[in-house]
Amino acid sequence: MESLDYCDPGFTPLVVLELTSETKEEAIGWLLRRIRDLQQNGGAELLVEQLGPGVGAQEKENPNMFLVGASQQRLLSGAEDVGLFKECSDGSMRAFTCTNKHKFKDFKGDGDSFLSMAECQYIIKHELDTLRARDETHVPGYTEVKLYPGKSIIRRLQSKGILIQLFPLHEKEELKRLSFSWYKKVKLSFQPLDDIRHYYGEGQAFYFGFLEYFTFALVPMALIGVPYYLFDWEGYDKYVVFAMFNLIWCTVILELWKRYSASLAYHWGTLSRKKAFEEPRPGFHGVLGFNPVTGREEPIYPNAKRQLRIYLVSVPFVLLCLYLSLYVMMIYFQMEAWALSVHDDEPTFWAGILIFIPSIIYAVVIEIMNLIYRYAAEFLTEWENHRLESSYQNHLVLKVLVFNFFNCFASLFYIAFVMQDMVLLRQSLATLLITSQILNQFMEACLPYWLQRRRNKKMINRVRKRRTLEDKELPLVEQVRLEADMSMYLGTFDDYLEQFLLFGYVSLFSCVYPLAAVLVVLNNFTEVYSDAFKMCRVFKRPFSDPAANIGVWQLAFEAMSVIAVVTNFALIGISPQVKAYFSDSETQLILWTVAIEHVLLAFKFLLAFLIPDIPKHIQIRLSRLEFESLEALKKKKMLEASELSKKQ
Amino acid sequence: MESLDYCDPGFTPLVVLELTSETKEEAIGWLLRRIRDLQQNGGAELLVEQLGPGVGAQEKENPNMFLVGASQQRLLSGAEDVGLFKECSDGSMRAFTCTNKHKFKDFKGDGDSFLSMAECQYIIKHELDTLRARDETHVPGYTEVKLYPGKSIIRRLQSKGILIQLFPLHEKEELKRLSFSWYKKVKLSFQPLDDIRHYYGEGQAFYFGFLEYFTFALVPMALIGVPYYLFDWEGYDKYVVFAMFNLIWCTVILELWKRYSASLAYHWGTLSRKKAFEEPRPGFHGVLGFNPVTGREEPIYPNAKRQLRIYLVSVPFVLLCLYLSLYVMMIYFQMEAWALSVHDDEPTFWAGILIFIPSIIYAVVIEIMNLIYRYAAEFLTEWENHRLESSYQNHLVLKVLVFNFFNCFASLFYIAFVMQDMVLLRQSLATLLITSQILNQFMEACLPYWLQRRRNKKMINRVRKRRTLEDKELPLVEQVRLEADMSMYLGTFDDYLEQFLLFGYVSLFSCVYPLAAVLVVLNNFTEVYSDAFKMCRVFKRPFSDPAANIGVWQLAFEAMSVIAVVTNFALIGISPQVKAYFSDSETQLILWTVAIEHVLLAFKFLLAFLIPDIPKHIQIRLSRLEFESLEALKKKKMLEASELSKKQ
Repeated sequence: MESLDYCDPGFTPLVVLELTSETKEEAIGWLLRRIRDLQQNGGAELLVEQLGPGVGAQEKENPNMFLVGASQQRLLSGAEDVGLFKECSDGSMRAFTCTNKHKFKDFKGDGDSFLSMAECQYIIKHELDTLRARDETHVPGYTEVKLYPGKSIIRRLQSKGILIQLFPLHEKEELKRLSFSWYKKVKLSFQPLDDIRHYYGEGQAFYFGFLEYFTFALVPMALIGVPYYLFDWEGYDKYVVFAMFNLIWCTVILELWKRYSASLAYHWGTLSRKKAFEEPRPGFHGVLGFNPVTGREEPIYPNAKRQLRIYLVSVPFVLLCLYLSLYVMMIYFQMEAWALSVHDDEPTFWAGILIFIPSIIYAVVIEIMNLIYRYAAEFLTEWENHRLESSYQNHLVLKVLVFNFFNCFASLFYIAFVMQDMVLLRQSLATLLITSQILNQFMEACLPYWLQRRRNKKMINRVRKRRTLEDKELPLVEQVRLEADMSMYLGTFDDYLEQFLLFGYVSLFSCVYPLAAVLVVLNNFTEVYSDAFKMCRVFKRPFSDPAANIGVWQLAFEAMSVIAVVTNFALIGISPQVKAYFSDSETQLILWTVAIEHVLLAFKFLLAFLIPDIPKHIQIRLSRLEFESLEALKKKKMLEASELSKKQ
Repeated sequence: MESLDYCDPGFTPLVVLELTSETKEEAIGWLLRRIRDLQQNGGAELLVEQLGPGVGAQEKENPNMFLVGASQQRLLSGAEDVGLFKECSDGSMRAFTCTNKHKFKDFKGDGDSFLSMAECQYIIKHELDTLRARDETHVPGYTEVKLYPGKSIIRRLQSKGILIQLFPLHEKEELKRLSFSWYKKVKLSFQPLDDIRHYYGEGQAFYFGFLEYFTFALVPMALIGVPYYLFDWEGYDKYVVFAMFNLIWCTVILELWKRYSASLAYHWGTLSRKKAFEEPRPGFHGVLGFNPVTGREEPIYPNAKRQLRIYLVSVPFVLLCLYLSLYVMMIYFQMEAWALSVHDDEPTFWAGILIFIPSIIYAVVIEIMNLIYRYAAEFLTEWENHRLESSYQNHLVLKVLVFNFFNCFASLFYIAFVMQDMVLLRQSLATLLITSQILNQFMEACLPYWLQRRRNKKMINRVRKRRTLEDKELPLVEQVRLEADMSMYLGTFDDYLEQFLLFGYVSLFSCVYPLAAVLVVLNNFTEVYSDAFKMCRVFKRPFSDPAANIGVWQLAFEAMSVIAVVTNFALIGISPQVKAYFSDSETQLILWTVAIEHVLLAFKFLLAFLIPDIPKHIQIRLSRLEFESLEALKKKKMLEASELSKKQ
């Protein structure tokens, strides 16, 4: 990494901290003092330097950008603070402690390359986040920005808009290597998950791991689907076998993913890592009161008030949106009927294409509605004023999932079970799937990339005007300013959501349109590349997030798989094949379908219960660790006791 | 408690250890030495005395009975070993440590009355259980009783039949007080759960807590049931309202119990207590290998072999038993039909009674089959050779539950849904319920009490012959021998099983026989008394068992409540009331029933997910503890760092 030419050569900048350009001098001085102060004085004991002016900088450049770093010693003690798990020489994963540092694999000398840059950045973020006010009652120079003992200074500055952003720097060399092995060479190998985790942290790596796993899990389905589709096997109105396959498939892959995810988490050291205490969200507000857990004075927002907001505003709003979505669906069916009548009157080539137009329009409208709703949901969840980020996320996910599920699948359910028109279902499914995939790829990767490229070129040109650049590398100052202008990566939410909807299309209805799995596989192959590309080139580097699994999404996918079992069984029940078998009594047919469905659901829950979530070999390692720590404790106690008896 | 007249007056006997009368002298000497040896030499550091001969003792009395106790100091360090949670002066529950002992409530002086006797006995049991072989290769005097380093000596002696039993002594005074407040005064107050826990430990207290909770939860149902039954409300073929009530009731009470149980566990200090490493069961055998967790050499039994035994022998056996039970059911229906035909031919008074005879016989047969099956299941599960007691228990519970459920309810399901004969269902349910209650109370309490009374009288008479007893109190030696002869309490398994079946009768079918809840409430009122009585008077005192909840039974009850929702919905579906409403289309009726049932099931799972399992105020206390320990750790680190910097 390039060294700064104007400061201490031992200083490696890790994180950038940007304050508004109008920040008062005294506030800046106070903040830097607090960041540099020793830990025993309540400081963060970090290194911080102001970023020098850029080359083309006179005009409207923000002078208040700071680079934060830390000494190796400080980073190691920070690693202990955040409870980082690292691999020991004997291959087991243990919480890092400074006293036992030499027991860890790859720890040499001062431990220079022991922590990855992503880990260092995470540590610095944690240390900044937990830099707390002592006796200050407000930020110097800002009497309106109140503080109270124990409040996180950074969070307060963030919520008051004085701190614009805090982001980790990219590593040019590492990034080049990673992007080469990840998406630059076209190859038939797995993604470099360990490298992704090394650079972006566990949360990102889990998303890409899941994406890959899910894509491969779809391959057998796609392989069965192609001949099914091509040769019209069994006349392909008779989809019972495929529905049965669907049923088992969606249960099994989720169970296996849980085990795979546990072994990934173990190897990345996050499986048994304890969650740190969560700070309140930057946007959280309330009146001062006593936190019942910490006993500190801090803003409290009564839960009853939040519940009122949820049940009296958010829930009715979601219901209203669902109603609107239903209304749009009905319009779609009218358009569909009209197109069909035109085609029936005059079956020309253009009329044949016209049949697909309503579906395409509907698919586009669905995407737009999802997008608008997404913003509304964020606004509402923000307004509900959740104290913790995790609770905010859960409420947001729930809101968005319910609406997206309804918006995307309501029309398909209506066609399947009310209209019972399998031809229309097939056509509608295909159009929805293909249109949404095309739209998504465009919105997700092409558009941001194009915007970023323009910005990038402008910057390079600006620098070229002043200096002669031998290689195309920018100097650090320009690089930092360039990254500061990059778009913020908003987390894996939208990526998971997209996979969730694709999983829905495949698991719910692929028995009537076996090509669905093929389409999803193709989409995901390009998705890996475009997601990787946008992570490496389009967005700011995100802080790593030490996740132990895919979180609430596991639950969402499992809920979908239960719905899939019910739906597939209902599809089997209305299939002509089965109906022919029970031709004399419809009641008998339904009763049998329902009975078998109940048994299968019970079996599914039993299966989920019986398959252990953590593979045996990892369970053994975990209990070995626990056993060893117990034994060590016992030995220590025995030693103390014998020393005590010697003294007496 | 009485002091022993022949030994150290500071010695309080807590636990009795009985070896076979033929045990070789060298083995006894070795065992006592190991028990008395200091901890740093690998001993248990406990006190142990041989029990003197009784008064009428010449004949066939076992001389190898030993009383085990410990010094106060040893008990306190043992409390730390087992991770006991006690209440602090500030009202929170913390793990006891000797260094912080003065922070705990009720700790005065040497801490004489700090630990309850049940806790002391549990500590002694734990210390005996973890008394491990060092370099002995076999028990002295028994070359065939192999040992290996790290093997629990007591477990080995137990599995080889040299150790007959290990049991804690009753406390006469305490027991008198407890039994007075528990069952001797007839009153309308709650059970003294805290006292029960104090005397018998958490496992027992949870059973009685659950029994009480369940009984009170049934009261509203019983209150609705009585007028329903008496006044034939709505002609009482129309049970839809009652079924809906049932549906909600069985979901809600289980969720509330979970919360109640969590707050009980918190107050008893078991909620956040860590489970100790389980020793292998005494009966477990295998060939020597290396334990992958501890790295010690010990018997290993391949899992594949166990799975083979389970799937090739146990599962077919259970299926065979189910078939047999089905066969018996069919015989019952034939008998029923015959009795009915006799009654129809000649409707006399005796023929009217004859109608109930098949049901009664069937109920008795069911109970007998359950009993026989219970023994078979125990034998099979033993033979499956599970390494841990918990895994043995889970497999036993699963086997017994499946069979008992089928055996008790199959006929009712058949009558309800195949025959659709609500009158027969009502009659059959009533007979089954009443007969099984009478049989249970008799088998559970009366019979053992009668046996114990005879034994008791014999002993007192024997003592009277030799000595003049002023009061009716026995001297300690006789008391110990009397308790040694008492029946062993076999745990709460059968008690929970009984409640499980009662819960089944009520939640599944009480809508057609509203008196069921009344009967169960009445049964449970007497059950409390008879269970309390048998705990206090009939059985040996059991070792306390630090449970944090009712364990696998919570799951069993929840599974039953899901089945109850489905059953009640099916009953609603076949009710004449609903059928009349959908008179034109049976298909419509079934589809609606199924759809609403699915929605309700989903709602039930959502409800179980949304209601937090631990009440908020306890969650706050738990996270406060966690927060405090984190803060303390941070302070300690800071102190170390500042000391280090001073040194440099």
